[in-house]
Amino acid sequence: MLPIATLNPELEAPLYRQLHANIKELIESGRLADGSRLPATRELAGQLGLNRTTVSAAYELLESEGLISGHVGRGSFVTRSGTLKNRVNWREALAGSAASTPAAPASTPLASFSSSRPSELLFPLEEFRVTCEEVIHGPEAQTILQLGSPSGYPPLRRYLHELARTEGVARDSDDILITSGCQQAFSLLQSTLVRHGETVLLEDPVYPGMRAAFERSGARLIGVPIGRNGLDLEALERILEHERPRLLAVTSNFQNPTGATLPLAARKSLLRITQAAGVILVENDIYGALAYEGEPIPSIKQLDETGDTILLRSFSKIAFPGLRVGWVIGPRPLIEKLTEAKQWSDLHTDQLSQAILLRFAQSGRLEQHRRRMLASGRERLHAVLAACEKHLPPAVEFTRPRGGMSLWIRLPEALDAGELLARAEREGVTYLPGRFFAVTHPEANSLRISFAGMAPDQIRSGIAILGRIFQNELERVRAHSPLTEAPAMV
Amino acid sequence: MLPIATLNPELEAPLYRQLHANIKELIESGRLADGSRLPATRELAGQLGLNRTTVSAAYELLESEGLISGHVGRGSFVTRSGTLKNRVNWREALAGSAASTPAAPASTPLASFSSSRPSELLFPLEEFRVTCEEVIHGPEAQTILQLGSPSGYPPLRRYLHELARTEGVARDSDDILITSGCQQAFSLLQSTLVRHGETVLLEDPVYPGMRAAFERSGARLIGVPIGRNGLDLEALERILEHERPRLLAVTSNFQNPTGATLPLAARKSLLRITQAAGVILVENDIYGALAYEGEPIPSIKQLDETGDTILLRSFSKIAFPGLRVGWVIGPRPLIEKLTEAKQWSDLHTDQLSQAILLRFAQSGRLEQHRRRMLASGRERLHAVLAACEKHLPPAVEFTRPRGGMSLWIRLPEALDAGELLARAEREGVTYLPGRFFAVTHPEANSLRISFAGMAPDQIRSGIAILGRIFQNELERVRAHSPLTEAPAMV
Repeated sequence: MLPIATLNPELEAPLYRQLHANIKELIESGRLADGSRLPATRELAGQLGLNRTTVSAAYELLESEGLISGHVGRGSFVTRSGTLKNRVNWREALAGSAASTPAAPASTPLASFSSSRPSELLFPLEEFRVTCEEVIHGPEAQTILQLGSPSGYPPLRRYLHELARTEGVARDSDDILITSGCQQAFSLLQSTLVRHGETVLLEDPVYPGMRAAFERSGARLIGVPIGRNGLDLEALERILEHERPRLLAVTSNFQNPTGATLPLAARKSLLRITQAAGVILVENDIYGALAYEGEPIPSIKQLDETGDTILLRSFSKIAFPGLRVGWVIGPRPLIEKLTEAKQWSDLHTDQLSQAILLRFAQSGRLEQHRRRMLASGRERLHAVLAACEKHLPPAVEFTRPRGGMSLWIRLPEALDAGELLARAEREGVTYLPGRFFAVTHPEANSLRISFAGMAPDQIRSGIAILGRIFQNELERVRAHSPLTEAPAMV
Repeated sequence: MLPIATLNPELEAPLYRQLHANIKELIESGRLADGSRLPATRELAGQLGLNRTTVSAAYELLESEGLISGHVGRGSFVTRSGTLKNRVNWREALAGSAASTPAAPASTPLASFSSSRPSELLFPLEEFRVTCEEVIHGPEAQTILQLGSPSGYPPLRRYLHELARTEGVARDSDDILITSGCQQAFSLLQSTLVRHGETVLLEDPVYPGMRAAFERSGARLIGVPIGRNGLDLEALERILEHERPRLLAVTSNFQNPTGATLPLAARKSLLRITQAAGVILVENDIYGALAYEGEPIPSIKQLDETGDTILLRSFSKIAFPGLRVGWVIGPRPLIEKLTEAKQWSDLHTDQLSQAILLRFAQSGRLEQHRRRMLASGRERLHAVLAACEKHLPPAVEFTRPRGGMSLWIRLPEALDAGELLARAEREGVTYLPGRFFAVTHPEANSLRISFAGMAPDQIRSGIAILGRIFQNELERVRAHSPLTEAPAMV
């Protein structure tokens, strides 16, 4: 079996390019030796949950580069490896770490539901420019350009801490660390809290970057199913009957990929359950500010009288993802450890971006921008839900988030979302098959629709195309075999 | 023995504040229990190579916060711990990771020789502003604010790659990864190449950030002594007779802390030695662009026909340390692995800073700024060398770097640079005792002088004060005991 690594759906590289880069790396590192045979496209497609067209496209690209050659009826063979002059045996030196997932440049499809990020057309460029100019002409410019603190740019840190105290999120026993986005918070929590072989509970399905960060520590990952109302607490309790996990990471609002939100009562129960079991609770709340409908629910951190919950937040989803600034709020002894890990990871987070985001927030421009994001997000959410109601066959189920960027579609079990992606791509529509998000329960029949980055018209056209493809496939399957009943919707 | 962690000299927090933060964390995490006795100031000073005044100042601060209380003749006792409401046992949860080293705000001494960073007075603020405005008003502004690539901002990556190829540094088999400063490159190399318990060779003395990054992987560190001409190759060969290290990291130009540069012949020998032993060679060259005198020597990477050497460079020392952008050049299979590790560490490096630094370089402003830095660095280097010649007692030896930011002073063995620091601080002069930089050979009688951040007059006054303190101490010691001969200068 080819050791193909996790693909990162947020980077929007076409699947065939990601696969191409993976196999190329296996060849160039010598892990696929000269002359060795690649799996047949059907076989590899099955292994990865991709369609054959995707695998074929990757093979064609490899062939065009002279890395493999195909022989009709015999398959494809590696034609070049070990031709570098290197004396270090990089294959051996790198064995044991997972294969790479480089990000190839993106192509632009008709309707891309595959990336959960804001549309760059919504970026308030003029306000960003004004903010930037205020910062570079301000009295702090020189200080910002000098080496900073691992804890974060002090004025930003004070601002966020004060905000968190005002909101009742930070207690006296809490402190704050600025990170280079939320991904770094996962990575620091992993290296600080989780030892090799320890058990970590993640939502299943979950954002692959969270899974990858904990996987790198050699943690044993167990997925806790996500239901209509977020984490399935009964499933969690069953797991805790025979497991002693180190920590549980949960996305309280508009979870990626399902869009599910944990209700107030469930948040309280979750606190009771994890406290009784002595499990450290990490609350990932990077989508909470994007509530398009309904009243916001207090964060788990806010509800936690003990102050032990660790809260992660970020500017990425509501401002500019290219500026990498997030933060962690948690008990002071933990924050001090995380700060040390942060220091030896990258000294400190880029100060210019910290200063710009602080000014953006303090000037009120962030809140103005957020209101516009909420208006446009609401419009897109309504568009995607209405289109799903209208175009998806009745046997297809989907979640109904009230904020965030994604919803989750579950097809009848006979359908394979990975296989159907090829057809969708041919019609200019992309999405991410559900198995990219699996922890321990891969679902071949589910998929994620990220709607935040696209105009309502694109959303409607894209969902209409998907509806037709799913309908056609259902009819084809029905013609060949009795339909499997759709399972209870999560 | 109190588990006090590595202090980070680059962050310029006074030593007593760093120590205070360390002990406070031990108390608040519960690792120092309520009622337990702190070591006597003399005892802790001895353990850490600090002076008693520093330890006393830290204890006083703890006492003022009600965390400890002193009883004459009995010592100091912890008076508060475990008073937080937390239910998670953070002491137990965090056991095994080293204590933290938070960065306290700096006080400004008369002459601070303790931080190897450029003077912020030399930052070309106007040129930075113009560059920044060109970027935010340029056609790429929207793209820069969107999520980017783990490999780096593509135009910057292409620019640096092209530059490295033109210089003959990058070969066809090489690729490039943009990192969040060089510290992140150490950290990624550690997690990608070094497994727990494997041996890593570092220069001794070495920049503590490099030591800490490899230490965190659980690597076994061995220090290779630095001589007058950089790494002591004979010592290296002796070590290689009975050790099988995974990698060796070496700073080819103006090493931090010693200022030593590896001559051309030694670079070639080093390549032969490490290749014969199968040791991966990491060349850290963040100071190479700061050559104030003499002709530049080809980098080890450039001399390495196999292409296996891994080269680290950065904008931090020649532009703006607060913008965290460095890069790694190495064999493609390695860069692909590092890119994956980078992706799950923090997705990608801040794009705004990458774009600004690219524009700064492409506009020719970086090179103009570098010339000014070279002129001012040359002036400072001459000032510090002349002042050392003039003011240091003859028994004191010092290195004579031709670039970079630091030189290394070795006092006669009877003198303790940690003890003498208290006297220097009372007169407004700071430096870093040599033992902060030790890997396996701590030297109580050495110290680092970082001269790049200060005006020539400050340098002269500061060295004059140090010369007087060292002279007085030498006389005191001579009066009490026969003088130990100074060892051969490194």
